[in-house]
Amino acid sequence: MKKVVIFGVGLIGGSFALALRQAHAVSEVVGFGRSPATLLQAQQLGIIDRIGIDVAQEVGDADLVLLATPVGQMAEIMQRIAPHLGSHTLVSDGGSTKCDVVAAARAFLGDKIAQFVPAHPIAGAEQSGAAAARAELYVDKKVVLTPLPENSAAAVAQVRQAWEACGAKVSELTAQEHDQVFASVSHLPHLLSFALVHDLSQRDNRDVLLSFAASGFRDFTRIAASSPEMWRDICLSNRDALMQELMQYAQELHVLYQALEQRDADTLEDVFSEARKVRSNWTQQ
Amino acid sequence: MKKVVIFGVGLIGGSFALALRQAHAVSEVVGFGRSPATLLQAQQLGIIDRIGIDVAQEVGDADLVLLATPVGQMAEIMQRIAPHLGSHTLVSDGGSTKCDVVAAARAFLGDKIAQFVPAHPIAGAEQSGAAAARAELYVDKKVVLTPLPENSAAAVAQVRQAWEACGAKVSELTAQEHDQVFASVSHLPHLLSFALVHDLSQRDNRDVLLSFAASGFRDFTRIAASSPEMWRDICLSNRDALMQELMQYAQELHVLYQALEQRDADTLEDVFSEARKVRSNWTQQ
Repeated sequence: MKKVVIFGVGLIGGSFALALRQAHAVSEVVGFGRSPATLLQAQQLGIIDRIGIDVAQEVGDADLVLLATPVGQMAEIMQRIAPHLGSHTLVSDGGSTKCDVVAAARAFLGDKIAQFVPAHPIAGAEQSGAAAARAELYVDKKVVLTPLPENSAAAVAQVRQAWEACGAKVSELTAQEHDQVFASVSHLPHLLSFALVHDLSQRDNRDVLLSFAASGFRDFTRIAASSPEMWRDICLSNRDALMQELMQYAQELHVLYQALEQRDADTLEDVFSEARKVRSNWTQQ
Repeated sequence: MKKVVIFGVGLIGGSFALALRQAHAVSEVVGFGRSPATLLQAQQLGIIDRIGIDVAQEVGDADLVLLATPVGQMAEIMQRIAPHLGSHTLVSDGGSTKCDVVAAARAFLGDKIAQFVPAHPIAGAEQSGAAAARAELYVDKKVVLTPLPENSAAAVAQVRQAWEACGAKVSELTAQEHDQVFASVSHLPHLLSFALVHDLSQRDNRDVLLSFAASGFRDFTRIAASSPEMWRDICLSNRDALMQELMQYAQELHVLYQALEQRDADTLEDVFSEARKVRSNWTQQ
């Protein structure tokens, strides 16, 4: 690609730029963002070549525009870029939820919707910001594309190639499948982990409790140290699927509560055994 | 100590023996157990000096008898040793729950109850068995004693010294405090982790779900690979406290469900922020 424009040059956008550069898959990277300090830092770190000034001018001849801001800011950016997108310019994003991003794109990209190929790079984000960006972030990590019916095969292939150039393993789901899958394996566990720590934090004896917490607690609650703002947005963005998951999980807990109540050792052991079998056979892909 | 007798020479009992030996804190270790193969292995590994044959004879002149079997087997052992305990012989255990072990001791040790000082060594047990035992297992790990009103200060001090000789950091709680604390920070998280994996394992699309699970899921569910039998027993042993915890956690989830239902961003962010603050400030002690 000759030119890539990135909105949001933090961990996700910055690492995308560095990875494309390292793969010699891009000639020029232009960055936009809310914070002038971050943009300057990104330029100094060699993440972007230039800080963008004029959106209309920059997106007209870009090969790819990546929206790597929080999902809540994407609608406004789509509105700004839509009138100026070149006919060959593709748009993608790095949002953790997809149905809401697709809805925003349908509302704000208008007749350019076929140029938008939604994506979700799954790269751990304990850190954030341009300083945390690195060219290797996506190596062997999963990126899920959720192509639209309007996308041409060529458009999807081009976005796929960009992520593959970053070292990622690219797969495809519909936006709805994506949001249901991630509600199950990511958003629900985060909610449950936040809930446990919050629950304990409200107790009178919380300091005693925490002083006896050990490695099981440590691992179970690692994700409770994630960004509150980001997870608030993800939970609200994927609200319907997450509510469904919570409901089903509450039923699971009800079964276990009843088993305890009735001293039903068999049910407890069956549930634990099945869980252990599945968890032991699982390997992160 | 001149002589220590250990019932159950697996990870917990075997490591206790090895640590005492390494500290030159014991002259002779005698092992009892259900499995002759394990006892032979323990002897070959230098964990025990002798395999015990006659309980009556061995516990009469022992300084310390450690019950390191599953909690469910302790009552029967107490019944067997009670008539033969020497007047200076102390008894301790390594059970993960304490109210039930204390109740068994009151029932089966009878007028020797003052000689029983309950203990819970908190050492991660992903592995088990004599082959996994090692002298360093308890170094800088917590051991909680839950002394009885009947214990003399000297008896408690002697059991404390034995664990300190193993390198452990020893603290004291009442049995009831202990069970409430561990229901909160250990038993509930294990139940929640088993429940999540079991919940997902029942889905038609479980293979797709698991293929997209990443590092958050990995850490959250690590403890779902724990022993089903052991956790069935712990959950039933600490049933009352655990049911209380489950009830309170269900209320916490209800609050979050309502926040989602009402698109209440502030409540979500408040809960997540408090959790992150507490979790970030926590360090394993």
